[in-house]
Amino acid sequence: MLFVLFSILTVGAYGSFNILPVVPFPQEAEMFSTNRRSLNVEEFRITTDQGHLLEDKVISSTINRYQHYFSRFKPGPLSPDGDITQVSLSVVYPEASLFIGVNESYTLNIDPHSPIVKLSANTRFGVIRGLETFYQLYNITDGTFPSVKIRDYPRFAYRGFLIDTSRHFLPVESIEMVITGLAMAKFNVLHWHIVDDPSFPYYSPSFPSLSEKGAYDSNHVYRIFDVLRVISFAENHGIVVVPEFDTPGHTLSWGKGLENFLTYCPGQGTFGGDYGPINPSVDSNYEVLHKLLAEVTSLFPGGFVHLGGDEVPFKCWQSNQDLVAWMKQQGIQTFNDLESYYEEKLLDIVHQLNTSYVVWEEIFNNGLHIQPDTIIHVWKGKWEDTMGKVIKAGYKTILSSPWYLNYISFSMDWKKYYQVEPYKIPGATPEELSLVIGGEACMWGEFVDATNILSRTFPRASAVAERLWSSEKQTNIGDMEFRLNKHRCGMCARDIPAETILLRSYCPVEFDGYDW
Amino acid sequence: MLFVLFSILTVGAYGSFNILPVVPFPQEAEMFSTNRRSLNVEEFRITTDQGHLLEDKVISSTINRYQHYFSRFKPGPLSPDGDITQVSLSVVYPEASLFIGVNESYTLNIDPHSPIVKLSANTRFGVIRGLETFYQLYNITDGTFPSVKIRDYPRFAYRGFLIDTSRHFLPVESIEMVITGLAMAKFNVLHWHIVDDPSFPYYSPSFPSLSEKGAYDSNHVYRIFDVLRVISFAENHGIVVVPEFDTPGHTLSWGKGLENFLTYCPGQGTFGGDYGPINPSVDSNYEVLHKLLAEVTSLFPGGFVHLGGDEVPFKCWQSNQDLVAWMKQQGIQTFNDLESYYEEKLLDIVHQLNTSYVVWEEIFNNGLHIQPDTIIHVWKGKWEDTMGKVIKAGYKTILSSPWYLNYISFSMDWKKYYQVEPYKIPGATPEELSLVIGGEACMWGEFVDATNILSRTFPRASAVAERLWSSEKQTNIGDMEFRLNKHRCGMCARDIPAETILLRSYCPVEFDGYDW
Repeated sequence: MLFVLFSILTVGAYGSFNILPVVPFPQEAEMFSTNRRSLNVEEFRITTDQGHLLEDKVISSTINRYQHYFSRFKPGPLSPDGDITQVSLSVVYPEASLFIGVNESYTLNIDPHSPIVKLSANTRFGVIRGLETFYQLYNITDGTFPSVKIRDYPRFAYRGFLIDTSRHFLPVESIEMVITGLAMAKFNVLHWHIVDDPSFPYYSPSFPSLSEKGAYDSNHVYRIFDVLRVISFAENHGIVVVPEFDTPGHTLSWGKGLENFLTYCPGQGTFGGDYGPINPSVDSNYEVLHKLLAEVTSLFPGGFVHLGGDEVPFKCWQSNQDLVAWMKQQGIQTFNDLESYYEEKLLDIVHQLNTSYVVWEEIFNNGLHIQPDTIIHVWKGKWEDTMGKVIKAGYKTILSSPWYLNYISFSMDWKKYYQVEPYKIPGATPEELSLVIGGEACMWGEFVDATNILSRTFPRASAVAERLWSSEKQTNIGDMEFRLNKHRCGMCARDIPAETILLRSYCPVEFDGYDW
Repeated sequence: MLFVLFSILTVGAYGSFNILPVVPFPQEAEMFSTNRRSLNVEEFRITTDQGHLLEDKVISSTINRYQHYFSRFKPGPLSPDGDITQVSLSVVYPEASLFIGVNESYTLNIDPHSPIVKLSANTRFGVIRGLETFYQLYNITDGTFPSVKIRDYPRFAYRGFLIDTSRHFLPVESIEMVITGLAMAKFNVLHWHIVDDPSFPYYSPSFPSLSEKGAYDSNHVYRIFDVLRVISFAENHGIVVVPEFDTPGHTLSWGKGLENFLTYCPGQGTFGGDYGPINPSVDSNYEVLHKLLAEVTSLFPGGFVHLGGDEVPFKCWQSNQDLVAWMKQQGIQTFNDLESYYEEKLLDIVHQLNTSYVVWEEIFNNGLHIQPDTIIHVWKGKWEDTMGKVIKAGYKTILSSPWYLNYISFSMDWKKYYQVEPYKIPGATPEELSLVIGGEACMWGEFVDATNILSRTFPRASAVAERLWSSEKQTNIGDMEFRLNKHRCGMCARDIPAETILLRSYCPVEFDGYDW
């Protein structure tokens, strides 16, 4: 094989050269030539010299997926330099398991002459990222690839997306479609806000009454089988599932299945009901939490749990005279102190479980005693100030404030998401900034369920994904618009109803994924 | 059979009694009793004593549809009064064909004791409306119907919905899904804004070059077969298709396939391009329009064509010196007069074709000479003023200004649509108000295609549909919220991804219509 480099054109970060329609844009890309390679659809195989790799569940499911996607395309015209027939994989550390921060780097080499494309990755998860880049480089219309060498890795370790299955239930299939779209944008964390006030759809073997009483009905429950299916599907896409059990507020649905768990406060509850947050004075509540969190942390393999802690209303606690009397007895002066009392007991439990955790920013803002490896999840306004304080205090942090994708608007709001820079924190030192480990787009469930979550999420979330994966110099809006449009068409061709971002446009393969 | 009326509870217009989850709400409904009837899913048949009815395409396809929908439900618990096994249809004028204003009235009688539900309609199209009401009365959870007698008819003759296939193409299947949802809300007009500036997807046998050059590509074209399929599908749902060929503006895509058709005006076109509106000075252009409209009006059987006429920009005409010289020669003083010159020639053509037409309000505002049966389509602000002037001048009118559903918002905008009252025109006499023949919800295509049109349209459009079908006294928001939620769940059960209208909710049968 001849490796003649016609010329090396630098594309990449400065985005002046619109030939690589990849989102998120790779860290480094070199064009070998302007000649394009065609895909030999019929002979095409993804292979490896490391035979044992094929026995791996993540690798084999990934290979199957991409072979299936390419098998749906029609053969393109013959390339003058011969067709591509293979992608050959190699992995340096095949045994690495999935965690937030696992090495996702890869190099992808589409040589101008060889029929074999080389994809080398540090771990199996880099293979997933590299094959997605390979898919996106394919031009559906003419069936060709550019001749290019890509070296790629994420800028941030935490690139999350929140789904909320309490306000509206999402069938497992719908969650799988979301994960498929997230993987196309190289997200690596699915934050599963699984329970909240409206419903408790998680089936707990330790406390079956929680979903029996707290779910909308028996059809709106995630059983162990369903949870494992989501976790496994996500792992095959290089995505860690972080479950959230938000307490002590946002727990109304828990109260239906557990006696004496919530604070009784007639007419003073969160929604003017008879119950409010968890009652911190009841010792058995901490036993419940311990047992439940032990179960959850052993079920979800990601090593992280999200403990919530946001928006705790005090009105209910205040109105319960027994609780107020108990506080006096304990020497707890304020309701803020009461919240701290609860949280410190909760955090002790989680420390005992040897699990890391993410918490909403209130836990930090209220000055609670937290473990050094805690991630503070910033979601309120003035995020630069809050994150500045968090990193000065030495904690890791992730950003969501500007990325509440459940808020929708008529026009192209992806630009607004794209223009956010998580490092724009006044006065922060480079060392402090290294504690900004990423961000998360949130799709809260007030008006979202299986009918619209895909079109509302994609490709808007991909603008956030690029901010979190690509170089911080990758900021050209026009360049991104061009790539994002191609990216959404690639999603449509893969049966994800990703909506248009242009006033007038079409896709070579339109979305055609209804069972109609 | 015994017709014992336990009590007659008036529901209906004042909506205090939430037992009938029908949208749009029927004009008159009487409860026979509070006992509920169950459906015998296995034996259930829709039949008629008028044997020839079954040979009719509209009736037979309607019967098949609803039998199919009901066959998907599980049997409910036995009713104490015995099961419903049949709906028996009767039609007074089975030969009536579909037009805007055809009689859609029906009576539906779910007797508390008989196994036979009686549905009587004036025309075949009333049968479609009545069976939909019957479907919506069914409680999916327990498998029962209320015992009720309904007499129903639309308040307005024109209840339209606009789709735009020029900015983004909609595959025929996607249009059929839209029609299915529209029929659930008893709409009766599909306004097909088929071509516009961005693309010309309509294949014209007289001018094949129009779509050959003007469509996005050859996969984004409606061939005669496709158009007939849409028309037939719509007719089977009691929906008239009104095609729009908007001129003389909004025609950039026409210019690609027709020489000398548009006005040449380098850099002064609508989007700063080299061409602007149709050139009114070119005689052969009127021959093109005549031939094209003759073809279109013979293809679409509804008897109406929408001629557009909105947003004609003058800058382009003004910059073309040949055109300006020609105006002088013809004694045409202003560009407003030039537009009138064009429109009057166009309207002459349409009169010769013996077709009625709808035009955007500019045609009226500019004082053009229009036929008495013209419908003026009001879409701009201050619609009360414009409609007041239109009806005082003796023209029929339809309202769209408050119903541009392509504008989206985070929260429950259906309430805003629902609170519009088309008769709220200051100083109008009852006779004048009778010229307000209805309204139309518009889903312009800037950000809408097959990926999101269904979830963005439904059930928001159904709020407009109720305003146009039900009594003007039907205004209770709480009552509508209850019914609209059930209505959207009914859509989901029928594979239409209608999005949620409540902050927290679920459907007994969730949307599960992806081919995944």
